[in-house]
Amino acid sequence: NLMHRNHMLPESASLRCTVFNDKGDLIASSKDVKRSTLISEYGLFPRDLRKIDKTNHSVEIAPSISVRRDSILINMLYIRCLIKADTVILFDDMSLRSSRAQSQLISEIETKLKSTTDSSLAYEMRALEAVLVSAMTNLDAEMKVHTTVTKGILSELEQDVTSDKLRFLLIQNKKISTFAQKATLIRDVIDELLDNDDDLAEMYLTDTLNNKPHSVDDHAEVEMLLESYYKHSDEIVQTINSVIANVRTTEEIINIILDSNRNQLMLLGLKFSIGLLSLGAGMFAASAYGMNLENFIEEDHYGFPLVVILTMAPMAFLFAYSSKHLRRLQKVTMMDHYKSVREKF
Amino acid sequence: NLMHRNHMLPESASLRCTVFNDKGDLIASSKDVKRSTLISEYGLFPRDLRKIDKTNHSVEIAPSISVRRDSILINMLYIRCLIKADTVILFDDMSLRSSRAQSQLISEIETKLKSTTDSSLAYEMRALEAVLVSAMTNLDAEMKVHTTVTKGILSELEQDVTSDKLRFLLIQNKKISTFAQKATLIRDVIDELLDNDDDLAEMYLTDTLNNKPHSVDDHAEVEMLLESYYKHSDEIVQTINSVIANVRTTEEIINIILDSNRNQLMLLGLKFSIGLLSLGAGMFAASAYGMNLENFIEEDHYGFPLVVILTMAPMAFLFAYSSKHLRRLQKVTMMDHYKSVREKF
Amino acid sequence: NLMHRNHMLPESASLRCTVFNDKGDLIASSKDVKRSTLISEYGLFPRDLRKIDKTNHSVEIAPSISVRRDSILINMLYIRCLIKADTVILFDDMSLRSSRAQSQLISEIETKLKSTTDSSLAYEMRALEAVLVSAMTNLDAEMKVHTTVTKGILSELEQDVTSDKLRFLLIQNKKISTFAQKATLIRDVIDELLDNDDDLAEMYLTDTLNNKPHSVDDHAEVEMLLESYYKHSDEIVQTINSVIANVRTTEEIINIILDSNRNQLMLLGLKFSIGLLSLGAGMFAASAYGMNLENFIEEDHYGFPLVVILTMAPMAFLFAYSSKHLRRLQKVTMMDHYKSVREKF
Amino acid sequence: NLMHRNHMLPESASLRCTVFNDKGDLIASSKDVKRSTLISEYGLFPRDLRKIDKTNHSVEIAPSISVRRDSILINMLYIRCLIKADTVILFDDMSLRSSRAQSQLISEIETKLKSTTDSSLAYEMRALEAVLVSAMTNLDAEMKVHTTVTKGILSELEQDVTSDKLRFLLIQNKKISTFAQKATLIRDVIDELLDNDDDLAEMYLTDTLNNKPHSVDDHAEVEMLLESYYKHSDEIVQTINSVIANVRTTEEIINIILDSNRNQLMLLGLKFSIGLLSLGAGMFAASAYGMNLENFIEEDHYGFPLVVILTMAPMAFLFAYSSKHLRRLQKVTMMDHYKSVREKF
Amino acid sequence: NLMHRNHMLPESASLRCTVFNDKGDLIASSKDVKRSTLISEYGLFPRDLRKIDKTNHSVEIAPSISVRRDSILINMLYIRCLIKADTVILFDDMSLRSSRAQSQLISEIETKLKSTTDSSLAYEMRALEAVLVSAMTNLDAEMKVHTTVTKGILSELEQDVTSDKLRFLLIQNKKISTFAQKATLIRDVIDELLDNDDDLAEMYLTDTLNNKPHSVDDHAEVEMLLESYYKHSDEIVQTINSVIANVRTTEEIINIILDSNRNQLMLLGLKFSIGLLSLGAGMFAASAYGMNLENFIEEDHYGFPLVVILTMAPMAFLFAYSSKHLRRLQKVTMMDHYKSVREKF
Repeated sequence: NLMHRNHMLPESASLRCTVFNDKGDLIASSKDVKRSTLISEYGLFPRDLRKIDKTNHSVEIAPSISVRRDSILINMLYIRCLIKADTVILFDDMSLRSSRAQSQLISEIETKLKSTTDSSLAYEMRALEAVLVSAMTNLDAEMKVHTTVTKGILSELEQDVTSDKLRFLLIQNKKISTFAQKATLIRDVIDELLDNDDDLAEMYLTDTLNNKPHSVDDHAEVEMLLESYYKHSDEIVQTINSVIANVRTTEEIINIILDSNRNQLMLLGLKFSIGLLSLGAGMFAASAYGMNLENFIEEDHYGFPLVVILTMAPMAFLFAYSSKHLRRLQKVTMMDHYKSVREKF
Repeated sequence: NLMHRNHMLPESASLRCTVFNDKGDLIASSKDVKRSTLISEYGLFPRDLRKIDKTNHSVEIAPSISVRRDSILINMLYIRCLIKADTVILFDDMSLRSSRAQSQLISEIETKLKSTTDSSLAYEMRALEAVLVSAMTNLDAEMKVHTTVTKGILSELEQDVTSDKLRFLLIQNKKISTFAQKATLIRDVIDELLDNDDDLAEMYLTDTLNNKPHSVDDHAEVEMLLESYYKHSDEIVQTINSVIANVRTTEEIINIILDSNRNQLMLLGLKFSIGLLSLGAGMFAASAYGMNLENFIEEDHYGFPLVVILTMAPMAFLFAYSSKHLRRLQKVTMMDHYKSVREKF
Repeated sequence: NLMHRNHMLPESASLRCTVFNDKGDLIASSKDVKRSTLISEYGLFPRDLRKIDKTNHSVEIAPSISVRRDSILINMLYIRCLIKADTVILFDDMSLRSSRAQSQLISEIETKLKSTTDSSLAYEMRALEAVLVSAMTNLDAEMKVHTTVTKGILSELEQDVTSDKLRFLLIQNKKISTFAQKATLIRDVIDELLDNDDDLAEMYLTDTLNNKPHSVDDHAEVEMLLESYYKHSDEIVQTINSVIANVRTTEEIINIILDSNRNQLMLLGLKFSIGLLSLGAGMFAASAYGMNLENFIEEDHYGFPLVVILTMAPMAFLFAYSSKHLRRLQKVTMMDHYKSVREKF
Repeated sequence: NLMHRNHMLPESASLRCTVFNDKGDLIASSKDVKRSTLISEYGLFPRDLRKIDKTNHSVEIAPSISVRRDSILINMLYIRCLIKADTVILFDDMSLRSSRAQSQLISEIETKLKSTTDSSLAYEMRALEAVLVSAMTNLDAEMKVHTTVTKGILSELEQDVTSDKLRFLLIQNKKISTFAQKATLIRDVIDELLDNDDDLAEMYLTDTLNNKPHSVDDHAEVEMLLESYYKHSDEIVQTINSVIANVRTTEEIINIILDSNRNQLMLLGLKFSIGLLSLGAGMFAASAYGMNLENFIEEDHYGFPLVVILTMAPMAFLFAYSSKHLRRLQKVTMMDHYKSVREKF
Repeated sequence: NLMHRNHMLPESASLRCTVFNDKGDLIASSKDVKRSTLISEYGLFPRDLRKIDKTNHSVEIAPSISVRRDSILINMLYIRCLIKADTVILFDDMSLRSSRAQSQLISEIETKLKSTTDSSLAYEMRALEAVLVSAMTNLDAEMKVHTTVTKGILSELEQDVTSDKLRFLLIQNKKISTFAQKATLIRDVIDELLDNDDDLAEMYLTDTLNNKPHSVDDHAEVEMLLESYYKHSDEIVQTINSVIANVRTTEEIINIILDSNRNQLMLLGLKFSIGLLSLGAGMFAASAYGMNLENFIEEDHYGFPLVVILTMAPMAFLFAYSSKHLRRLQKVTMMDHYKSVREKF
């Protein structure tokens, strides 16, 4: 029952952060920062912290880019990041599976912030670009894994439909649906930001800090930056959606094929029945002449071939008759149905 | 990783356009025009350009006719076009499949703009009409392909239901649903424009340019022009919807027929079983008399025919008895059910 | 490509109308009236005309009764009609199938307008009543056809369930659903009008013309008139809904019966298998004694009957054993399931 | 065509009513009262009358308790009643099936109104209570019938699942769903009234008549009265909902059982096939030795038992081999699937 | 008919309560308190009491934490509790199954209220925490039962899929869905409270009583307290949701496996048919030579082995031919379908 007491302990009130200074130097790596410090120093609300912390447990949290008076708060995939005009704080994700992406993100941010070629861009823009590059690279990689795996299953299914492959397609289908949702949310977040002039203008944190706030219309630079990432995410969404449509069509076609296969198995079974029935007729005739009774042609020289040939007759008749019946059913037609209905009503 | 840098390059900020002057002459073909030029010279918003550019990747974008102070922006099928009182700018679609429609559109616009018989119509009206003619011709052609193909499959299915044809119907069904949605959106865009007096009046760009703005009620000319295209698109929507309803009914009927066919195959299999069972009875009797045991009628002259005839008896009995059972099940009736329930409850 | 030019031709701008004067005389039958005349003389909006004209193609248009300052515009089933204080204009429906209903409507309107017994009612009320009578008569007739046909199929299905009948039920089900929707929309239009005091009071066109406008509460006469037609349409809706519920229940019961029938066919097949299996056992024993080998009882007098009887034993055993197995499965019970689960968990 | 004229006849404008005076005496039984009288004397609106009259045709009308300035109008189940401070008017339902409930309601109202023990309650409260008692008694009785019948079917199904019983469960399921909806609507009407302080205070008609209107908070008496009926109706709703949940669970379990039964029938059929196949092998061997050919052991003393025993060998082998195959399929396991997929991908 | 009178009896107007004073002493256990007392003394509304009482019958009531001017009313799981600055009233739940949780709650509240270590917390906060601890402990326990049982069924299903286990999975699935809904509602109630600054500030009842009301921003203490329980409930919701997703995936995989199993049973049946057919061919040949007719090789020394070997030929042919047919169908492929369609259309 320790759980319901830990809100008393001061440690629980801290988050593990990685901090970059205005030169792009990594001044603190995975440092525990108190919640109260974050709130007082960086102008965050307790609500923001809750949102950031919430992601420990639930992955399905919607991505967001919140533009504040003097900071940009980004919550996207494994990235939870606060960008200010002279500081970048990266909140660490404890879960293991994103640790590699996390370290790539750290080096990307450092490179960008220290970069001299991009120095025409303000500090916050470079940080934002580093975050978006990392997110897109990650999305891209995941998309490539999904499309490769899915195409592999689909091409295997084209050769041979087995329940194992169907099962794997089902699981893969779930995964790409989840990914498509994730990618669409990220695209929509960027799209909404692009449609919001106020937020775009407020993103010039350095200029705002230097008392040169941008007017609502003056945001060409950041708009173009965001646009290129919007297009990239849109491409990912389009690609994954076409993969999903592909999977769905394949599934529906497989259903038709399996249905038809089952019908053909039924038909084959009926053909075997016809064969057995014909042989049965022959056997009956033969066993009749095998009875220890006087059949008057015992000694006849032509008895054997005659009876064998005559025995073939009912066999052939039964075979022909049954086959005709089956063939009539084998060809499923809508003609008769229309006709009979027209006659009746 | 070149992708996330290309927003820096000036070329990426241009669109390929085809421009017509006020005489209808093609003054620029597939010329690259800078985004900034488009925004400053033609009074477009960055948002409009994004919308136009967006269509590179996603085809599902909703059509739109936006009426501005001094221009009409049309986004419809493969057409993305800006009409002004003295200029028409056509934004090129890079994708190959619409290139033929695109060149037809260019010649249509040129013809209309240079036309002398229609000279009573203002410049912008003639351009608008050329665009709508091109769009409708395209929709019409696509509709005809779809209806022809669909009717072909349906008539083939009437003769013979196979899984190949069902599979093809499934794919065709998806295609016509997509087309119906596309056509409906276009019809609705025209319908909404017709219901909006302000927009209709503002569409007289030449008169507005000459300081003779139309009042909100004064738009009979453009209303009639749009109405005829509204009717045409409505006809297309009605036709394609009736095709869809036709396909759905056929699918449901096929399901009933396939179900009934499967039942008939089951019944046929049972008939074969009856035959085999009867023959089995006969064979048992015959093989009993075939035993190397003394059956006391070995030498009897009437033994053979007698036993054969007597052997037929259980065969006939089994055949009749089984057939009766089957016939009772073959005729599915609701009568007994009602009765027995009434008795019970 | 004539289509996209016909908005230029003046004829296309006219509608075919039938006009009654204030005496009820038919002063114009199927006369072509220009759209512009209709708009200027009768105070209609271009929008109204579009709505009236739209019905050429699409039947699914929602019915409406629009009350204007000096006219009532009715759009209901095949009826498109403008009622004024001294004129009734009936817009002709070009489609053939409603031509008989149309001519009945014309004679009904003429009779009503010339009627002396109803002369206590104002001109517009008599016209309105004629329109409603015609619409209700038509709905009634269609409902009777649908209920008769549906009941016929249902009673046929009670005797014998075939795929032809199921197919016909499916098609009929679609038809009555469409009809129910149509009837419900008409009932709701009248109901809404009854709930709208303003519109009811404004419907006294003659009094309004004579400068005696009715107050919002003073509409007992028209309310009672509409009420009786409301009740009639409500009855039709109730009847058709109970027919639909009937069809749905029958369909669900048929599904249960077909399922049970399929199970019974399976059981019958298994019974045949039991028979064949038993005979097979007998045949094996008999054919063993039919071998050309010394079986030591060749000459025994009691050999034949003994072996035949002994042969019956495995047959009987197999028959009894298999039948027991089958019987156990034939009676589907939930008992064992409950028990075994309780024991397990 | 008399129908569309009857709004002219004065009789159609009357309702059949039963009236109680302020002493609780039945002063008029099934008297025809003119609509106009009801409107003028009792302050009803034509709309109220329409609602009351509407119930002739449609049973699905929503229940309602409307509190007016000087009357309470109740529309619930078969009850349509107007309560005033000194009069109770009961509108007769023409339909036969509720006539007994109707007469019980009349005697209940009379008893309550004349009651001396309840005389502390105002006239309108006693009338309201009588109405609610009658409604609840009726709901209760119907619920008991439904639960008894449903439990009967469910317990019958536990012993033996037949299509007749399933069919009956289907019909019963529909009935209890309709009833649950009806009961829920009544509970919600009382709940809404309880949440509406204004209406509760206005229900003291006698006090209002005596110019002692209750304040919005002063309605403890009526609130407690309604509360007890609210609880009763809530109990009914809860009971019927638990019955519905029970039915649904049973249906889903039956589906699993039927599915499993079908699989077991298939398995039994395969077992019979195995038997027949084994016997066939034996028969072939035996009939081979039954050929009229020299097999060299004709005279051997151990020939017969030897061949019979050797014949058993292929039979036993086929039986064992086939049974093994079947047993492997009989035990449906997910293990192999997981393994094979892991190996493949 | 006692039911509809019990609102007259004074007892029915009381609730059974357990009361704690400001020292945390249990001053009244399961005491009947009049509704009127509760309303007048504790400032409750009749509506609150109804809500509390309602839970007798329906379990599906939504949880709520209502913050009042001088009290907090909690309705959560089996807990219905009123917290004031110096009193805690616990309303007893009559139902038996929650009695143990109830007594645990009572001891938890007493411990907390008397606790000296937590004395830094105000009286109402300690009471609130006790309530939340009890609710979370209960949710946790229920979650553990559900996950354990579900995992047990899933692991049993991995070994062997039987209808009993499927049935149990179905029932368990319903239970965990209900539980997930319950847990989600509780989490959302806490989340909403956390997002509402006003309510959080008003929860400092003691300070409000001492005329030191907290400002809207001043609620760090209670926010942190609620947050830790929010996280706990969120963890429960996440866990149960992943269990549900697990169950759903297993169900879908089982469907694929059962389908594949049914196909394999069909294939096995066809293999048996092939065997029987081949044996039938052999038997026919053998029985032909068993006829009592002159076959000219009776005395031939090589007749027997020759005929047996020749008899094997049609058997082998039939076996090979049928098996080839079956193998072709056994491997379900999409290849042919694509090809044939491409050729046709």
